[in-house]
Amino acid sequence: MKIKVVNTANQAKDIDFDGHIAVVIDVLRATSVITTALENGANSVIPVETVEEAQSLYAASDPKKTLRGGERHAVKIEGFDLGNSPLEYKPKTVESKDVILTTTNGTQAIQSVKSAAKIVLACLRNAAAVAEILIREDKDVVIVCAGTEGNFSLDDGLCAGYLLHLLKEKAAIETDDYGILLERFYRHSAERLMDSLSDCFHVKRLKVLGFSDDIMFCLQANSSRCVPVEQQGRITRLR
Amino acid sequence: MKIKVVNTANQAKDIDFDGHIAVVIDVLRATSVITTALENGANSVIPVETVEEAQSLYAASDPKKTLRGGERHAVKIEGFDLGNSPLEYKPKTVESKDVILTTTNGTQAIQSVKSAAKIVLACLRNAAAVAEILIREDKDVVIVCAGTEGNFSLDDGLCAGYLLHLLKEKAAIETDDYGILLERFYRHSAERLMDSLSDCFHVKRLKVLGFSDDIMFCLQANSSRCVPVEQQGRITRLR
Repeated sequence: MKIKVVNTANQAKDIDFDGHIAVVIDVLRATSVITTALENGANSVIPVETVEEAQSLYAASDPKKTLRGGERHAVKIEGFDLGNSPLEYKPKTVESKDVILTTTNGTQAIQSVKSAAKIVLACLRNAAAVAEILIREDKDVVIVCAGTEGNFSLDDGLCAGYLLHLLKEKAAIETDDYGILLERFYRHSAERLMDSLSDCFHVKRLKVLGFSDDIMFCLQANSSRCVPVEQQGRITRLR
Repeated sequence: MKIKVVNTANQAKDIDFDGHIAVVIDVLRATSVITTALENGANSVIPVETVEEAQSLYAASDPKKTLRGGERHAVKIEGFDLGNSPLEYKPKTVESKDVILTTTNGTQAIQSVKSAAKIVLACLRNAAAVAEILIREDKDVVIVCAGTEGNFSLDDGLCAGYLLHLLKEKAAIETDDYGILLERFYRHSAERLMDSLSDCFHVKRLKVLGFSDDIMFCLQANSSRCVPVEQQGRITRLR
């Protein structure tokens, strides 16, 4: 299994995904939110790029079965039902609902891998479950770290490294120099995930904005067996 | 001092270098070759992108004062005087000569930073001398890892991390998440630089091609005080 790693959604534009499984990672917080929403019973998550798209899709949907979620600059969008905190996506809120989601980085990263044979969403919470799926599928993989505002984000790199580490334990994988770098970063950080991200730009910003509980939640590795997959514009839980 | 790190020459195309110092790194082997050629008395190195450019520039030069150097796919170009091994660039060969150089990654990385206020070339051999210059200049910096055939190369990342480590010891620097990652990679590798690159794609290829001595030479950190600077298409030693 060959595994290529891409450090931002922007860089994914140059990649040929044909026949590959794309794994999109946005630990803080889009892929953690989507995993949590589906785990807690949401029917589906529909990622869209703009606030306008979210609003017009909502206008055409049954409001009893639909929620609007997302953020701009880490803050909830005015008039939306939910922000981008996974802690908001509780069972009683999301059960049997379709969530229209727009975030600054994560939903755009999902758009950037549209030509892949399969699109899987990963975060630290579901990394072991995602690794199992990848081993079962046994196809070449491109891991896309979504990044933050066009730049590489250390939380995504940590998750990519963890995923590579899990895969290496159970399968014969061949990765590129970037994958080697991230797998080592994870290994050196495994005992103290939170400390390893203390200098991370996005972590510092979320702390200032009062989202420390979100960070703790998103760093709980292997706390979910839910694997979100995207197909024709809709993300559902893989059964 | 703000320091941004870019992981391939290709990614440098999206960067605004205005007012910044660009530091180009291609440890294996272009920037190691250029540092060594200038240290050993070459008058200048003229980086060009194509073999054709190198040949036509040579045809217009004094052949007694000019050498053609470079590689394609790590191997010397037919008809050229020198390949891309720093060990070939001995004092008796290069003294007072202008070297027209074309390599697959390094010379293209230099082209990609043309709009920078100043262009400095770094490798592991001259990293401490480069760090001193950057501290003296005290401008914002973009470090460009040249990469190998469009992909990030671990040797360049190690050198970028080392440079950041040296700067951090002596100045107040602010780097991005990618810089944080590479500085940690260097710190975890400092005691065993060669081991840290054992899985590196480019290292493995150079070994197969018989260039193990080149790798050893390029990994001799702080063995040179020579800092190459590019100005108007010509690289000379900073005095």
